[in-house]
Amino acid sequence: MFGESHGCCVGVMVEGVPPGLKVSEDYINSELARRRPGKRFTTARRETDKVEVLSGVYMGYTTGAPITMIIRNIDVDSSFYEEVVRFMPRPGHADLPSRLRSMGFEDYRGGGPFSGRLTAGLVAAGAIAKKILEEYGISVFAYVKKLGSVNCHLEEPLPMSSRELKRLVDERDSSPFYCPDKNATERMTQEVAAKLREGGSIGGQVEVLAFNVPPGLGEPLGDSLDGDIAKALFSIPGVKAVEFGSGIKLAEMTGKEARDSIVVKEGRLRVEPGHGGGVLGGLSTGSTIRVTATLKPTSSIPIPQQTIDWRGIEPVELRSWGRHDPTIVIRATPAAEAAVAIILADHLLRWMPYRIAHYYRLEAGANESS
Amino acid sequence: MFGESHGCCVGVMVEGVPPGLKVSEDYINSELARRRPGKRFTTARRETDKVEVLSGVYMGYTTGAPITMIIRNIDVDSSFYEEVVRFMPRPGHADLPSRLRSMGFEDYRGGGPFSGRLTAGLVAAGAIAKKILEEYGISVFAYVKKLGSVNCHLEEPLPMSSRELKRLVDERDSSPFYCPDKNATERMTQEVAAKLREGGSIGGQVEVLAFNVPPGLGEPLGDSLDGDIAKALFSIPGVKAVEFGSGIKLAEMTGKEARDSIVVKEGRLRVEPGHGGGVLGGLSTGSTIRVTATLKPTSSIPIPQQTIDWRGIEPVELRSWGRHDPTIVIRATPAAEAAVAIILADHLLRWMPYRIAHYYRLEAGANESS
Amino acid sequence: MFGESHGCCVGVMVEGVPPGLKVSEDYINSELARRRPGKRFTTARRETDKVEVLSGVYMGYTTGAPITMIIRNIDVDSSFYEEVVRFMPRPGHADLPSRLRSMGFEDYRGGGPFSGRLTAGLVAAGAIAKKILEEYGISVFAYVKKLGSVNCHLEEPLPMSSRELKRLVDERDSSPFYCPDKNATERMTQEVAAKLREGGSIGGQVEVLAFNVPPGLGEPLGDSLDGDIAKALFSIPGVKAVEFGSGIKLAEMTGKEARDSIVVKEGRLRVEPGHGGGVLGGLSTGSTIRVTATLKPTSSIPIPQQTIDWRGIEPVELRSWGRHDPTIVIRATPAAEAAVAIILADHLLRWMPYRIAHYYRLEAGANESS
Amino acid sequence: MFGESHGCCVGVMVEGVPPGLKVSEDYINSELARRRPGKRFTTARRETDKVEVLSGVYMGYTTGAPITMIIRNIDVDSSFYEEVVRFMPRPGHADLPSRLRSMGFEDYRGGGPFSGRLTAGLVAAGAIAKKILEEYGISVFAYVKKLGSVNCHLEEPLPMSSRELKRLVDERDSSPFYCPDKNATERMTQEVAAKLREGGSIGGQVEVLAFNVPPGLGEPLGDSLDGDIAKALFSIPGVKAVEFGSGIKLAEMTGKEARDSIVVKEGRLRVEPGHGGGVLGGLSTGSTIRVTATLKPTSSIPIPQQTIDWRGIEPVELRSWGRHDPTIVIRATPAAEAAVAIILADHLLRWMPYRIAHYYRLEAGANESS
Repeated sequence: MFGESHGCCVGVMVEGVPPGLKVSEDYINSELARRRPGKRFTTARRETDKVEVLSGVYMGYTTGAPITMIIRNIDVDSSFYEEVVRFMPRPGHADLPSRLRSMGFEDYRGGGPFSGRLTAGLVAAGAIAKKILEEYGISVFAYVKKLGSVNCHLEEPLPMSSRELKRLVDERDSSPFYCPDKNATERMTQEVAAKLREGGSIGGQVEVLAFNVPPGLGEPLGDSLDGDIAKALFSIPGVKAVEFGSGIKLAEMTGKEARDSIVVKEGRLRVEPGHGGGVLGGLSTGSTIRVTATLKPTSSIPIPQQTIDWRGIEPVELRSWGRHDPTIVIRATPAAEAAVAIILADHLLRWMPYRIAHYYRLEAGANESS
Repeated sequence: MFGESHGCCVGVMVEGVPPGLKVSEDYINSELARRRPGKRFTTARRETDKVEVLSGVYMGYTTGAPITMIIRNIDVDSSFYEEVVRFMPRPGHADLPSRLRSMGFEDYRGGGPFSGRLTAGLVAAGAIAKKILEEYGISVFAYVKKLGSVNCHLEEPLPMSSRELKRLVDERDSSPFYCPDKNATERMTQEVAAKLREGGSIGGQVEVLAFNVPPGLGEPLGDSLDGDIAKALFSIPGVKAVEFGSGIKLAEMTGKEARDSIVVKEGRLRVEPGHGGGVLGGLSTGSTIRVTATLKPTSSIPIPQQTIDWRGIEPVELRSWGRHDPTIVIRATPAAEAAVAIILADHLLRWMPYRIAHYYRLEAGANESS
Repeated sequence: MFGESHGCCVGVMVEGVPPGLKVSEDYINSELARRRPGKRFTTARRETDKVEVLSGVYMGYTTGAPITMIIRNIDVDSSFYEEVVRFMPRPGHADLPSRLRSMGFEDYRGGGPFSGRLTAGLVAAGAIAKKILEEYGISVFAYVKKLGSVNCHLEEPLPMSSRELKRLVDERDSSPFYCPDKNATERMTQEVAAKLREGGSIGGQVEVLAFNVPPGLGEPLGDSLDGDIAKALFSIPGVKAVEFGSGIKLAEMTGKEARDSIVVKEGRLRVEPGHGGGVLGGLSTGSTIRVTATLKPTSSIPIPQQTIDWRGIEPVELRSWGRHDPTIVIRATPAAEAAVAIILADHLLRWMPYRIAHYYRLEAGANESS
Repeated sequence: MFGESHGCCVGVMVEGVPPGLKVSEDYINSELARRRPGKRFTTARRETDKVEVLSGVYMGYTTGAPITMIIRNIDVDSSFYEEVVRFMPRPGHADLPSRLRSMGFEDYRGGGPFSGRLTAGLVAAGAIAKKILEEYGISVFAYVKKLGSVNCHLEEPLPMSSRELKRLVDERDSSPFYCPDKNATERMTQEVAAKLREGGSIGGQVEVLAFNVPPGLGEPLGDSLDGDIAKALFSIPGVKAVEFGSGIKLAEMTGKEARDSIVVKEGRLRVEPGHGGGVLGGLSTGSTIRVTATLKPTSSIPIPQQTIDWRGIEPVELRSWGRHDPTIVIRATPAAEAAVAIILADHLLRWMPYRIAHYYRLEAGANESS
């Protein structure tokens, strides 16, 4: 990923994409539309978010060469940053460490490269990754599991067919909170508004589910599947925790309470009920992967905050703030979905084609010798 | 890292270590001793865990060449694995996905490369990393924050001097639970034993603190400091969640409740009270880094478990189990400390020397021109 | 690097650049101008080659975030490729393997991502690298050492001061062949034109010199300095050989003939006369680095060539050809200079700042204790 | 790779190896035997070179986990290094830059990590790589193409069947110079001995051929196949030049002379006569890959050499020398073969399984729908 919030654009360069995947700008734009602000409860900033595919796609198909995509920044107003943030780092944002890392040369406008705006690149890359997963029948689905104190409950059992999944996606997309649970959506509308008045912004959780992931993805002793997914999720601004399966609840559980079983279900091996979240020993188990990211409440709120002024390194009260989302949980949802899709596609390409080619070859050999 | 639980050894190859660090096998062995089983509440397996440094160290100092270290496996009894696990994958372990990943060629003895035994390599690498951190005055400290339902409370304020930290380390090491809180240690002794009788094993949490980390470590848009730390922690078998600062509590907080301030304290900029855990925008803030890993209860417990038999892919009840720790939280503590130390050392070497050299050069230039 | 010859642009993403380097688009354009066609003996294609810096630079200085740069493709005429190359792979070009790699989805227009056009990205990245080298007083200089049978002789001794180097650069740039030797330039004008009439195109050699490189750059057992430089040079289309120092002449030499000495010259250790080309054991020696890349004659020449037609996989004679340079040696010169600059900057940043910071600290410690 | 010439061992860690490859220590030892000194014209040092496979292989097959292998160093005599090299860097060796890189902490005994001894690890890794290539019918063959002024001529046409290749291998192995040309071997015996008397040591060339490589291996715009092969070859101590196909001869050729044709031969597309050496645009063409590495004469020769003494940085004459090969060309032959095998296996695994799996799937789909 590259780019800055108030620079000319944000973007991403994707390497290692197989040739022959059907990819159009329209398709990528439809993915980008899901993170576009301008909806209720998101920032006032207008963004059209149209992707430009600069390389790696020809006549509507990937070529196998690096794919670089950019999304232009428009409707940019840097005055707040040039007048205020330049001198007073906002607590809760990367302003302070960014200046020190950059030895004074940072681009502080809109958070520079540390802005949530950068997740547009993540979503664009995720759109490519989903095309790879599609070839193998894998689906990724993210939704807002929690907004403040309101929980969204997914109906069990989880969708088993693509038709059922389609219905779930529609339910999610019809909720302004990306929450496929009507009651919860209603409660969010009320309670969340109240919380925002009271506390300026609110945190929450995004859960990502990955269906039909083949078992055995992940590398032992290094690039574990859960480790890579966690790392990708932490690249989304505001994420402060990542849990798989039963997550932190496992701390208080006994082995008896937390145990899973291996069963055969519809011709497939499953690990159930799935306290491990579909990952064991850093490898996918073949069961649904469940991972939850916790997002902190937006740090920019209309309440005076204590900080320092770089001119003199003296204490000062920060009394103004830029445009911002009252919660970043909603917009983080498509980004989290993309992050998981990217890691799954990456791990899938490492060994699944080898296993498939090997299996076909064995079979071809068997046929030949018969 | 490389090796298998019941192979000849486990080990690690560390690249990018600067020359001139004082490193002895005794020093590394003292770090390894901290994860050695044979203590109370850990597995019955005897391990002497003596490191052999194969390369990269000459006359007691690192040379700047790759450092490879191995720890021989002794007291190995693979009979349970050869008679049972070979045919019946243990639910909750990597046996199932490992076989599918390896297309039937996995080393299933003792969990092969997926065993907690592999964290010996992590701890050895961490010992080297700590030497790098030491040069910059950085300390890393891990302890058992939670064992089952018992919480360990660190006294606030956190240690500010190396003398205070030394005292804290001593308190931790005097607890069989790596818990520097006498009351909690006592309660653990009682409650934990009860829980184990009841449920076979127990989960918990390890918290890692890193003191005196300079601000600005971490890369924007890729290798974030929190993402890399999370990935390293997930490489420890049994870790199912990673939280920074206030972690999942942030989901229910408002911006007002979760806000931090930037203050000057003892001549240094601090972000307080530190809901972000010392990381903002993927960069260290200069405040103490706080990260918590949740470990699930050990999956091998003396209770029949449902699984399948590879010979026929039919359901079967697993009624035996190998030697195991009743909880992996204690032994994971030095591994978690090592994981954080490795990532900090890696990020430190990326830019801190550049910043320091730059600063000295500016100063030298200033002196010259004066 | 990314992009295609007849796509919207070519470009490059550069990571790991320190903050605070002064970089303007004008500066990068001046570097790009050196590879611009439209000069004598280069392709008829018009390219203005203006860089757009998309990220990582703010207010004229690098920020430490990834720098992405693109150069738009204009004056593109793909008709030859769509009518001919699409069906008939040109021997000597990547058309054949590219189609098989891309499983039929390659961008064949103008050679797609395999075009020499892509070296514009290399030159842009090299411009950034040179700014890093400048901070350490390192200079890189490339020139045409051989064009067909005409050799260019550099006057010995090599330039020792930046003033002398400046003069050499001016001499090179005043030659249409990038050859800082007036006699050779004259002979090239005559003989080369004759050769071109006779054989359609001509090969040659570029030599790259790097002055004032500190000793000890390079990693043992992996990323050797010469290996990395060679890899970078082979990324320039048409390069078929890379030699250091006395190169292939060493095959026929004895140890006595090929021996170097270590001497002290102007207060610095030098390895002389330098048969090794400034690299020993994969590390820089502190002496001038000398590396030569051999470029094949352009493969597109107005002579019928034997190939196959994809429609039917049958033999066919290729009787037309696109626009091309009669020699690629001249345009490869700035690309080779950039390739060496990039590798040197990369290796420099790995350990030199550490060594400098260490030295300053030792000195500071010495002053303190005195 | 890791290890030092006079440390406890040299070794290598190989990641990304597929599971299920048959690998025994005997097999690896047979490969190592080919580089073992003690033969005529090689060093007096005795080495048994028995590999210990520390990880990643179980019951004679690879498991898919990292494979670490070590070869113990025995018959080590460091006295020359401790008494002489410690103070006087040998010109032509890495002693000087190694000390500066290591800030005085280098392991100077036997050249430390810069010794030719390290190629034992390369050969061991190459043995694994060959098993991967074998699955795809690819063979790699290296031989001494030139020793001093004596050239070895391979009979044309090159072997087309594995039986023909076997015969070639036998011829090579029966020559003490790894030269499958009886006349050349005889001339080498005479001339080389004379040259050695006269000049202490002698240089030469190794050519590596790779048969049956599928077209399209290599990555555009980064990891080119030729670039990666060149980098791997430069990791062999003493290599100073790498050429593909007609190599530096192309500098003086015209496009007419250097042109290749695409033809169909025995049902396969070939690029002939192959001036490009089987690589175009960084991709394999499907024709035989031909790459030549030039090795310099051994630098340690019994002739006084000018160097400096670290104690005082003053000029001194080096009048003694350690045990050494009079030529490194012979021992570099198996190392060069291994280097090319490793790179081919690496690139093969990137996309060939994907292409095969894709093809089978298309075919399966076609059958299904018919």
